[in-house]
Amino acid sequence: MIEAQAVRITEYGGPNVLSIQTVHMQDPGPNEVRIHVVAAGLNRADILQRRGLYPAPSSVVQDIPGLEYAGTVMDIGSHVSRWQPGDRVMGIVGGGSMATHVLVHEQEVLPVPDTISLEAASAIPEAFITAYDALFHQASLRANESVLIHAVGSGIGTAATQLANATEAIVYGTSRTRSKLERCKEFGLQHPIHVTDGTFSENVAFDVILDLVGGSYARENFRAIAQKGRIVTIGLLGGTKESIPIQVLMQKRVIWRGSVLRSRPLEEKIELIQSFESQIIPLFQQGRIRPVVDQFLPMQNIREAHASMEGNSTFGKLVLCW
Amino acid sequence: MIEAQAVRITEYGGPNVLSIQTVHMQDPGPNEVRIHVVAAGLNRADILQRRGLYPAPSSVVQDIPGLEYAGTVMDIGSHVSRWQPGDRVMGIVGGGSMATHVLVHEQEVLPVPDTISLEAASAIPEAFITAYDALFHQASLRANESVLIHAVGSGIGTAATQLANATEAIVYGTSRTRSKLERCKEFGLQHPIHVTDGTFSENVAFDVILDLVGGSYARENFRAIAQKGRIVTIGLLGGTKESIPIQVLMQKRVIWRGSVLRSRPLEEKIELIQSFESQIIPLFQQGRIRPVVDQFLPMQNIREAHASMEGNSTFGKLVLCW
Repeated sequence: MIEAQAVRITEYGGPNVLSIQTVHMQDPGPNEVRIHVVAAGLNRADILQRRGLYPAPSSVVQDIPGLEYAGTVMDIGSHVSRWQPGDRVMGIVGGGSMATHVLVHEQEVLPVPDTISLEAASAIPEAFITAYDALFHQASLRANESVLIHAVGSGIGTAATQLANATEAIVYGTSRTRSKLERCKEFGLQHPIHVTDGTFSENVAFDVILDLVGGSYARENFRAIAQKGRIVTIGLLGGTKESIPIQVLMQKRVIWRGSVLRSRPLEEKIELIQSFESQIIPLFQQGRIRPVVDQFLPMQNIREAHASMEGNSTFGKLVLCW
Repeated sequence: MIEAQAVRITEYGGPNVLSIQTVHMQDPGPNEVRIHVVAAGLNRADILQRRGLYPAPSSVVQDIPGLEYAGTVMDIGSHVSRWQPGDRVMGIVGGGSMATHVLVHEQEVLPVPDTISLEAASAIPEAFITAYDALFHQASLRANESVLIHAVGSGIGTAATQLANATEAIVYGTSRTRSKLERCKEFGLQHPIHVTDGTFSENVAFDVILDLVGGSYARENFRAIAQKGRIVTIGLLGGTKESIPIQVLMQKRVIWRGSVLRSRPLEEKIELIQSFESQIIPLFQQGRIRPVVDQFLPMQNIREAHASMEGNSTFGKLVLCW
């Protein structure tokens, strides 16, 4: 048992319910690794959890938010062979990463490429693993196909843009903020679409749509999707229900799937993480893709970081550093 | 050029717009086969086409309905090697099968098992190819998975029930008519669900749902589907638009896809038909599955057949015989 510092959700509400407190943490089990966390990326799920709208899975700590981290291995369980104390690592967790220490299964841990600081690395796991899984495992995106990425200036949006571009897909992206579209060009966005009235389906039929918005976009997606196109919904910024034209689903033979990472069983997460390590980590090492960080903030500023993300003005990720 | 008899849609409207008339038909091209049609199964698409709601694809005759046939090969194109005059065959077409003769690509033609009359065989292609494609190619149904089949007493429903049962899936089916549920038991329906108030999701979470209804069933499907379940919508008897709970699509990681057979490109149809021939035709030969025919009617009674299907009282298929 050790003492750690952690962001705690003291009750449901606005950013002011967050407080940094001392907590006690178990020692690693046989297959676990304890990580000294250097930084943690902020996600919209943290905000929903703070508001009481998105409880953590029952298997993880309920009142400490945080879905990703980067840091160094502090100590390891008796059966762990892959990691040594001092290794630079990063990863996703079901919750609890906004703390000075986290306990994780050794197979859930990813190495941090030498060229990337731990602070910047903490912006990688959620955005890139989610985008990788959605674009390639769920939507089977291939070279020369067109892909439309909604909320393209978000953490997942900028990650998806880079991954799609590295795959030689034809990359379209929507945003309601023109300056975000401009900034996305350096990450491989070829065709920015400035959404002013909720429509984005004028000229192109997209093979793949990556939707972080839901709501009215879900309906508009059916106008924009190509014959045999694939729509993957992984976020609901715009609403949770919508009237869908089922006849278009049929006529265009669309595949629409929803996905979340957080609640998946350990075995599925491990499989995904191993595939990410072999397919995507090399792209970071080669400098072909990189984390997109809006701001690094000290963990003491966690309330400010939440307020900032809720204001919707960030480009890429907010990172909290201990 | 030959003269043939055909059902013609003389204008859009009720069953009375149908009339049997003499038409002229081209000779077979190099890869085509001309079939002397003995019987043709009736489909809901024929009714929609008669009403002007579902035009034929531009590549086929516009005013002769009919999506399937069984008969004998009459003559063959110069490059055709697979068939000989006199062969007993059946198949799907984009339109025009309600005629004494049809022209089809040789690769779209299926052999009729010896044990099945041509009249009964004409009830096979649409129902069984559609159900086969939907259950196995679209929904990846496997042994021991649970499958819910809506409108289970329909042509597609009774075909899907038999195919799912032959795969050793656990077969549930819905109908609003209790007697149809009873009759489905002999075809392998294990768990009948009598739908009286539009709900069917009480006790079981289904791995696969085959939906011929759409409308309000589309919403209810999301309550009834299991984690990582697959919903395939291939019919819209119940309506074309519906408000969908997108957060359930995400949380359950559902795959929802729509499908139609009729408008697919020739290459895709051929691929499907070849797979059907190797996987499913043997099951007919072994007597493990069989076409389900409500009534055989003379083609002269085509108006009565349409009215009967619109009345929703049929069990299995209506077959029109020359």
